[in-house]
Amino acid sequence: RIMRPDDANVAGNVHGGTILKMIEEAGAIISTRHCNSQAGEPCVAALARVERTDFLSPVCIGEVANVSAEITYTSRHSVEVQVNVMSENILTGAKKVTNKATLWYVPLSLQNVNKVLEVPPIQYARKEQEDEGKKRYEEQKLDRLETKQRNGDMIFPVINPEPHTVGYSQSSLIHLVGPSDCTLLGFVHGGVTMKLMDEVAGIVAARHCKTNIVTASVDAINFHEKIKKGSVITVSGRMTFTSNKSMEIEVFVDADPFVDESRERYRAVSAFFTYVSLSKEGKPLPVPQLLTETEDEKRRFEEGKGRYLQTKAKRQAQLQQAARH
Amino acid sequence: RIMRPDDANVAGNVHGGTILKMIEEAGAIISTRHCNSQAGEPCVAALARVERTDFLSPVCIGEVANVSAEITYTSRHSVEVQVNVMSENILTGAKKVTNKATLWYVPLSLQNVNKVLEVPPIQYARKEQEDEGKKRYEEQKLDRLETKQRNGDMIFPVINPEPHTVGYSQSSLIHLVGPSDCTLLGFVHGGVTMKLMDEVAGIVAARHCKTNIVTASVDAINFHEKIKKGSVITVSGRMTFTSNKSMEIEVFVDADPFVDESRERYRAVSAFFTYVSLSKEGKPLPVPQLLTETEDEKRRFEEGKGRYLQTKAKRQAQLQQAARH
Amino acid sequence: RIMRPDDANVAGNVHGGTILKMIEEAGAIISTRHCNSQAGEPCVAALARVERTDFLSPVCIGEVANVSAEITYTSRHSVEVQVNVMSENILTGAKKVTNKATLWYVPLSLQNVNKVLEVPPIQYARKEQEDEGKKRYEEQKLDRLETKQRNGDMIFPVINPEPHTVGYSQSSLIHLVGPSDCTLLGFVHGGVTMKLMDEVAGIVAARHCKTNIVTASVDAINFHEKIKKGSVITVSGRMTFTSNKSMEIEVFVDADPFVDESRERYRAVSAFFTYVSLSKEGKPLPVPQLLTETEDEKRRFEEGKGRYLQTKAKRQAQLQQAARH
Repeated sequence: RIMRPDDANVAGNVHGGTILKMIEEAGAIISTRHCNSQAGEPCVAALARVERTDFLSPVCIGEVANVSAEITYTSRHSVEVQVNVMSENILTGAKKVTNKATLWYVPLSLQNVNKVLEVPPIQYARKEQEDEGKKRYEEQKLDRLETKQRNGDMIFPVINPEPHTVGYSQSSLIHLVGPSDCTLLGFVHGGVTMKLMDEVAGIVAARHCKTNIVTASVDAINFHEKIKKGSVITVSGRMTFTSNKSMEIEVFVDADPFVDESRERYRAVSAFFTYVSLSKEGKPLPVPQLLTETEDEKRRFEEGKGRYLQTKAKRQAQLQQAARH
Repeated sequence: RIMRPDDANVAGNVHGGTILKMIEEAGAIISTRHCNSQAGEPCVAALARVERTDFLSPVCIGEVANVSAEITYTSRHSVEVQVNVMSENILTGAKKVTNKATLWYVPLSLQNVNKVLEVPPIQYARKEQEDEGKKRYEEQKLDRLETKQRNGDMIFPVINPEPHTVGYSQSSLIHLVGPSDCTLLGFVHGGVTMKLMDEVAGIVAARHCKTNIVTASVDAINFHEKIKKGSVITVSGRMTFTSNKSMEIEVFVDADPFVDESRERYRAVSAFFTYVSLSKEGKPLPVPQLLTETEDEKRRFEEGKGRYLQTKAKRQAQLQQAARH
Repeated sequence: RIMRPDDANVAGNVHGGTILKMIEEAGAIISTRHCNSQAGEPCVAALARVERTDFLSPVCIGEVANVSAEITYTSRHSVEVQVNVMSENILTGAKKVTNKATLWYVPLSLQNVNKVLEVPPIQYARKEQEDEGKKRYEEQKLDRLETKQRNGDMIFPVINPEPHTVGYSQSSLIHLVGPSDCTLLGFVHGGVTMKLMDEVAGIVAARHCKTNIVTASVDAINFHEKIKKGSVITVSGRMTFTSNKSMEIEVFVDADPFVDESRERYRAVSAFFTYVSLSKEGKPLPVPQLLTETEDEKRRFEEGKGRYLQTKAKRQAQLQQAARH
């Protein structure tokens, strides 16, 4: 679809969250269709996880985003979908790859939302495809368990913070879940949640460096808990790490099903977003260093540095491998 | 209402689809109100058909669109509504007629959506008004039967198409039907469908001629089949004909009620949109000729030429008639 | 226009904020049109103030809202507009008055946004109308000065608050101002701000009483400062007072023009919203009493009680006067 002014920031770059939302919608459609392709209980595919996603090039207002999706692996209860986004300038005809994302969905019964149904198996062209898919499936399963454990963390507000401290840029928003945010099952679309997360992360990044910022990447996101229609969700973000030219922001989503008194507020999702700062000409700018004050902030900074160096090493290994072939 | 940036293209011209959506909403309100004006089963008026509509002058961001609607004919089971749109520049006070559209609605029972109710007759000021309305009613009934027959057609993607061929500009989008897209009966508003159709047709036109384009007219659209909440709709467009200064694009809407296994994907609507290309000063530009390759494409081009010449002849006849009076 | 699911809460009642936004749009159209009706510099009318507004009856999904606006007074530099909203059930034909609102607009030059232009005078049918208008004009001018003074207040977060305390229900959201939120001058529409304020106030009210709540009234709102496109706005709400069946919530709007480094964050608007709690059958429910802890909270509770009793007395005086006639 054509990118509109409301999809973009003041500089005309489309929000990463808008693109994540489109990706998720495409993934939800193809996996729901697949899971209903055999006779049996009707179901809706719910997003369980998005793998780490890089934003390879910014998209601008007036460009057309082409989204294509393909099922690449099925386990007994989950579907792996590969979604590619190409941006096309329809005036010049120029096309660029914007994103390649991998998403995992789980089919939930339309009659009983707590029942996970079986997924019809797909046919693989080659045996290795199935084996590689199985390996990816096992890896993400492990990672999901790990993130579940660090979910207790909270963001506390700071009075009169100094510029470039964590407290200075941290932000949060609340959103009342409306009907358009939800699937047929009455739960929030994963894409809606990701869009709100990107919105908060972007405000944190812009408050820190006071320039035009764009989403560079999103770490793997796990959707541990569904969020029901009518809930209030609080999305909070704080900066955890800065390199010379990038900022890492941790984002939490807490859901408060406040009409349903039987449930307390709970952590639904958390993730790391990486942003870069751009000049008016679209060149990366240096980022002011994050000032850490407490022990926790220093620890998180080091952890963020670890993730940053790991990603950098991985990327260089890929480049070397590509050069060798 | 005031036209906003999201209602318009990059050049500031409001999308034809936005205007079609406003027209349909006005028509739905007035005909639902009329059909419930007598005691009996409550009902909702569903759009059955829009007559050919010309966009007489482009509307810009910041202008106010005034929409007025009037019931002009009632048959036993249908209502004809005439909707006029005036755009008003509230800074200069200038007003222009933008559209005159004729829509047909059918009242469906709120209790049983497959039951068509009877329409309370309206009073005519003069006998001829009733006779002319009846003639229009018979004509559109005939036309609806005809379009139902050419509905089997499909759009297949083309790999590496040449510029200005049909395959080069053809486009499609998918949309998951949400609650705000739907009437009280849980079916998609005709206006929402038309807006998506205009969006796809606009992308096809822009891809073909790489300039700023605006909707010039929409051929009669028949809504054969309702589309249910939760369906996925695929809207596809391909260019069928070009004259020196206009492009005709055929648009198909297919609905896939994919959670409801009892139904296959089906063709819900199809229509022809005509676009013109505008320079930065708003003057019409010449359009690159469409290159037809297959037999089907050549046949469709000839059919499009037929429609183009017929419309041109009709307009000249009207002008001569107007001059004579 | 027809009220959609997205305009309403889970119980189907349309948000007060949606209605305030429609009212403001109607007011902006009629006053911009009036101020440009004489030759001279083109201008856009900006909202300066909304008088106290009661929500006389709730509007539901599927109903049509009819908005009508009339200019009732002009001073040298401001326009008073009276806007009435009627909700109409188009199935039954039943109509109800929903709102009567009074708004004040000021014409700002399109060339120089800091220049207030002169307003063309209107003709009054009777001399008393002009005199009464002048009286209203003087009163609101005085009131605007007063609220400007209590604008320094801030909302501080509370860790682990007890149920029914002020800290327990207080909430805030941030919103990045997009192009569709803005007028031709690039400043946020007053209606957009009021919609966000109602959203926050509604969440505060629902968190306090955990039931379905609806907006009962909004106290006069003064728009002291314009908010520019690209700003981040923080909307915060805290409960100030509860009677047996109503809750008063104070809402602040702070704007942070963070790309424009020359300006600090500033208070743009503040107002009091009153909510009632409704049972599933739409009957008013008793409201849990607000627990005040600090001296400031106790003082604000007493001030809220003062406003409550004053409003109650005024309404009874009106009823007695109406009975006498």
